[in-house]
Amino acid sequence: MSSVFGERLKVALFGQSHSEAVGVCIDGLPSGIKINMEQLKQFLQRRAAKGDISRQRREPDIPEFLSGLNNDYTCGAPISVIIRNTDVKSADYNNLRDTPRPSHADYAAKCRFGDYTDQSGGGHFSGRITAALCIAGGICIQYLESLGIRIGAHIYSVADIKDRPFDPVGITAQQLNIITQNEFPVIDKNTKKQIMERIVAAKNDGDSLGGIIEFAVVGVSPGVGAPHFGGLENKISSAAFGVPAVKGIEFGNGFACTELTGSKNNDAFYVENGVIKTKTNNSGGIIGGMSNGMPLIGRVAVKPTPSISKQQDSVNLKTKENVKLNIKGRHDPCILHRAVPCIESAVAIALTDCILCDKN
Amino acid sequence: MSSVFGERLKVALFGQSHSEAVGVCIDGLPSGIKINMEQLKQFLQRRAAKGDISRQRREPDIPEFLSGLNNDYTCGAPISVIIRNTDVKSADYNNLRDTPRPSHADYAAKCRFGDYTDQSGGGHFSGRITAALCIAGGICIQYLESLGIRIGAHIYSVADIKDRPFDPVGITAQQLNIITQNEFPVIDKNTKKQIMERIVAAKNDGDSLGGIIEFAVVGVSPGVGAPHFGGLENKISSAAFGVPAVKGIEFGNGFACTELTGSKNNDAFYVENGVIKTKTNNSGGIIGGMSNGMPLIGRVAVKPTPSISKQQDSVNLKTKENVKLNIKGRHDPCILHRAVPCIESAVAIALTDCILCDKN
Amino acid sequence: MSSVFGERLKVALFGQSHSEAVGVCIDGLPSGIKINMEQLKQFLQRRAAKGDISRQRREPDIPEFLSGLNNDYTCGAPISVIIRNTDVKSADYNNLRDTPRPSHADYAAKCRFGDYTDQSGGGHFSGRITAALCIAGGICIQYLESLGIRIGAHIYSVADIKDRPFDPVGITAQQLNIITQNEFPVIDKNTKKQIMERIVAAKNDGDSLGGIIEFAVVGVSPGVGAPHFGGLENKISSAAFGVPAVKGIEFGNGFACTELTGSKNNDAFYVENGVIKTKTNNSGGIIGGMSNGMPLIGRVAVKPTPSISKQQDSVNLKTKENVKLNIKGRHDPCILHRAVPCIESAVAIALTDCILCDKN
Amino acid sequence: MSSVFGERLKVALFGQSHSEAVGVCIDGLPSGIKINMEQLKQFLQRRAAKGDISRQRREPDIPEFLSGLNNDYTCGAPISVIIRNTDVKSADYNNLRDTPRPSHADYAAKCRFGDYTDQSGGGHFSGRITAALCIAGGICIQYLESLGIRIGAHIYSVADIKDRPFDPVGITAQQLNIITQNEFPVIDKNTKKQIMERIVAAKNDGDSLGGIIEFAVVGVSPGVGAPHFGGLENKISSAAFGVPAVKGIEFGNGFACTELTGSKNNDAFYVENGVIKTKTNNSGGIIGGMSNGMPLIGRVAVKPTPSISKQQDSVNLKTKENVKLNIKGRHDPCILHRAVPCIESAVAIALTDCILCDKN
Repeated sequence: MSSVFGERLKVALFGQSHSEAVGVCIDGLPSGIKINMEQLKQFLQRRAAKGDISRQRREPDIPEFLSGLNNDYTCGAPISVIIRNTDVKSADYNNLRDTPRPSHADYAAKCRFGDYTDQSGGGHFSGRITAALCIAGGICIQYLESLGIRIGAHIYSVADIKDRPFDPVGITAQQLNIITQNEFPVIDKNTKKQIMERIVAAKNDGDSLGGIIEFAVVGVSPGVGAPHFGGLENKISSAAFGVPAVKGIEFGNGFACTELTGSKNNDAFYVENGVIKTKTNNSGGIIGGMSNGMPLIGRVAVKPTPSISKQQDSVNLKTKENVKLNIKGRHDPCILHRAVPCIESAVAIALTDCILCDKN
Repeated sequence: MSSVFGERLKVALFGQSHSEAVGVCIDGLPSGIKINMEQLKQFLQRRAAKGDISRQRREPDIPEFLSGLNNDYTCGAPISVIIRNTDVKSADYNNLRDTPRPSHADYAAKCRFGDYTDQSGGGHFSGRITAALCIAGGICIQYLESLGIRIGAHIYSVADIKDRPFDPVGITAQQLNIITQNEFPVIDKNTKKQIMERIVAAKNDGDSLGGIIEFAVVGVSPGVGAPHFGGLENKISSAAFGVPAVKGIEFGNGFACTELTGSKNNDAFYVENGVIKTKTNNSGGIIGGMSNGMPLIGRVAVKPTPSISKQQDSVNLKTKENVKLNIKGRHDPCILHRAVPCIESAVAIALTDCILCDKN
Repeated sequence: MSSVFGERLKVALFGQSHSEAVGVCIDGLPSGIKINMEQLKQFLQRRAAKGDISRQRREPDIPEFLSGLNNDYTCGAPISVIIRNTDVKSADYNNLRDTPRPSHADYAAKCRFGDYTDQSGGGHFSGRITAALCIAGGICIQYLESLGIRIGAHIYSVADIKDRPFDPVGITAQQLNIITQNEFPVIDKNTKKQIMERIVAAKNDGDSLGGIIEFAVVGVSPGVGAPHFGGLENKISSAAFGVPAVKGIEFGNGFACTELTGSKNNDAFYVENGVIKTKTNNSGGIIGGMSNGMPLIGRVAVKPTPSISKQQDSVNLKTKENVKLNIKGRHDPCILHRAVPCIESAVAIALTDCILCDKN
Repeated sequence: MSSVFGERLKVALFGQSHSEAVGVCIDGLPSGIKINMEQLKQFLQRRAAKGDISRQRREPDIPEFLSGLNNDYTCGAPISVIIRNTDVKSADYNNLRDTPRPSHADYAAKCRFGDYTDQSGGGHFSGRITAALCIAGGICIQYLESLGIRIGAHIYSVADIKDRPFDPVGITAQQLNIITQNEFPVIDKNTKKQIMERIVAAKNDGDSLGGIIEFAVVGVSPGVGAPHFGGLENKISSAAFGVPAVKGIEFGNGFACTELTGSKNNDAFYVENGVIKTKTNNSGGIIGGMSNGMPLIGRVAVKPTPSISKQQDSVNLKTKENVKLNIKGRHDPCILHRAVPCIESAVAIALTDCILCDKN
């Protein structure tokens, strides 16, 4: 088990879906960072369930700081924050004890931790733990903002419906600010309507949808990161796969670069007002694991929520028999909008660690 | 800088393109692993330059073990292995001192390390360092084989030419053995011919090509890995982005899962001869960061080699003027076949670390 | 800042003297460890203030488990436990804002974290944080007991009054059980009376005392640990210096070995009933960073409590003037008995990490 | 196994007594550090065997840089350096195969690594590996000097013969420079004669001696380090126990503080020319894991060399019989003078890591 992330920054997530609380301990942030509590709560609200297209677990998700602050400034001591779990319905999960849900962690967790594993609500593997991730992310975002760095993300696609992508060379902090104030973060408003309709249809069908989230960061100085294993791509990908349901990540034009020739894919340099820039940004702002000063851009693939109402094929782990499974309880037909702040958090945590590792 | 990978296994890469040697120090492998030197050399040969489609640096690439073995068995002490750099032509790089090559690490490295950075041949950012990665990978592969685990990879695509994919539920150790003995590892022989012609065309045009590598692992017990940040996807992605030119990674059906509904994407369980299996393997054998006993499958995107003969736009970092750049020296028009053992190595190293972290 | 310990086990302490809570997040313990809550509370009671010779902060110190358990067994998920701070009197520390207490962390912390540092009650540097350490230690002790390993410690000396030492070759689990049930853990009852009188005298004099704690571990298999930096001595010392006031550590006969010749200091081997033993145990059960099967023995030096009632010389950090300082508030004239479970905890945590790192 | 040290700095030692080479890979040092090769060689010479009182292994110990430099400046890439083993006499160790040497790592290593362990000359547990440690140390020392920090150490005692101690408040960089240029580093020349005679006597008796090494560091800014587990004491002790034969470490007045009252032991503050100082330095310059601006002072206990010519009691591990053991080969009757640069190295490496972790 390792729910601890980072080399200099150490972010330790804890909690299960139905434990007393979920939370995070953050070690290594500098002292003197002003924490805006209202901003943090608003950030967490973006992750919380809401509206027709989210499931029914409704908890206030108020972060409780146990340590690390002195009059709302980080004091250098480890920051610990928890959110109490209040809306816990373990009974919903009783029929799942010996019948693993397809494409959930149930079976693998049982192989890993034996019958001791906490299956209620998915235990430590629950999406609930992303509330803790977002606390850490929301704090890192405020730290990065104090350095002039701005992170944002949007729903790039749901199923085959695509939003307008970020402009990889022209995206601005202001645009990122706007998109992240959006409850359902898409750039093109028409896309939102299409996506919503599709999600409701999936819900009514007892099914679920996946999609792609695109993230961007502006304001990163060139030279942040490291080659080989300590670089931006290594750390961001490692953090992003900490968000359940993420199955792929790409930077810059990503997989699409494989169909271009080098002369088309290379990002030519030019000077503008004394600043080195590139004409295109197929590299996504990262070369050799390090930033090159252009916007940092990438995308993650989020699989369709594995919890669906439709009957599925599973097995009884005790009797080793094939069985039919009907999952009760709360399901999200699509988690893309809730996953957006999680991806922003993963990027913020990884980038913060990279910045804290720089000392040249 | 961190060219050290791993939590229990610690793989430290070192070397620059034109330094005395490249090499690796591997700490944490158990004692008693038999190292088959012939097999290791053959593995390294797959990464070495050869044939019409590879550049002209021709070095024997003989691994020299400095420590860690006792009569060809690991003795528990750190394993260190080097390869001498012999075919060094620094002069080729003189015109690059102040003119960064597009989509190379030159500029970012200069921002990170200042004028002290070693630019000759790309320095520590050179693909040459993957020889060290492959030594570590080749050793881990032999360790994993002793546990009954088999890794293989093939060229899934070059530009828009696609090979036949692995069968995600049916791939066998035997098939992986065959594909990895192949000098140009594709499954469909017709694909090879097409790809070769395309590469030669790109070379003649002074240009380069990218592509996708698909990897697979069979024989991993269910329950290997960890949730959140210490899982298989986190570690494999973190290691894979350590291979220069990798710009994306996906597991299972990856980005394609985003266009499926949950009911189509979920991997239904069934029992076969008392063994729990899934009918599909869209998860790529990984759920919640842990293996589920199915083949571990994924793909990485490799960008077209940034070194091309065509004239490109760049800047002079000192004068801050736009300039034209012509890169001399040795170029690979396509590195996909050479990157295949590198990706196998990244997967092997990450998986070894996950296995060494398991103690339940 | 790094209040995170461990390579495989990751113990993250958090909390300040006057923050909402102190606590710990423990990542990496196997699932299936039964946690005996009563035993844990009793262990924490040994650290809590009590009696004439301890200061007046009286808090119940009830550990609240937020995550990581499933019906009192570890479930494999990170364990988080907190203790609320209730008896907080920040006003006591107001006169210390710009006047650092001699031999306290006040001044160094201010240099490290600036004015943002939380000075109340010593902040994160307070001995209060050892409550969190003891939670982690108490849990590791129960894990080690499940493996047949027993840890104990006693007050070896206070000032120049010495207790009878452990028998380095003959100490048994039973003896360690007895000593650790003792409220004031000394082996020789006469020593206790002498020490108590001396502590009361120091208290009446507005002064404080230090001393030495001796720890022992029995039941460790030979071969646990690692050479150079990952060994038992490295990890135990690194953890022990995490206990405030520790200024030295030695293993086996420690500093005394420097006055022996090799022939006197070497631990000769012999066979007893088929078991390899050593006639003496000057090595303290550790050779080359690894256990040799003999009892693991060592001692730590604990400085006299720096908080004293006597007037002391200090400086005003703002005016840069020499000033006289009178410390109000609660002081322990001697913390040796309260430090004993802290040292047991440090040893238990370090040893657990070593054991979890073994996979051969 | 973990022969890797550090959090930001990563120092990976490798090599066995009779392997091809010993060496080190250093990751994380900033670029732009000028490496003075002559100074480094002289530093390594202090560790090398010489004179009547050292054993007969005579190797040039020339460090060979394989990577990490660019015209004698660190370039930011990992630094790897090796020393070839040339004077290898494995035959000397044949009679030790099944008969572990008392107070050597032989038996514990066999329990840890099985028959695969490399026993020749002590394998990875040999003092030979300290040559690699000293390379890393010598490089860190040059880095620290560039920051105005100076490290030195001397033989504080051999057996019961004591040198004059460092002045804990008054020690200067100049004094440390002088002591470290000394082939046999003692402060009082009369001590040297006494010690030499005692060592020769021990040698003639087929026996060996231990002693204490005192180290000091001046020029460290206040506030370097961290509380709990990432502090100066934690890291220095963890590194120092990486030097074979070290059995204890103390900071400031160390174990002696336990016999003082708080009012005597506390280091009173005063202002001198606007600088905050302490009148005494019983804390050894470290409080709460952080530097307070005073000289950093401590001592380590080095046990008498376990290799002696006198016949000893051991066991045959195969037959499980008690046997007599006569160790042939090369022995040092006392390693104190050779251990001095090793301790300086451990301190330098740990301090460098602490400094690289500071980013506030």
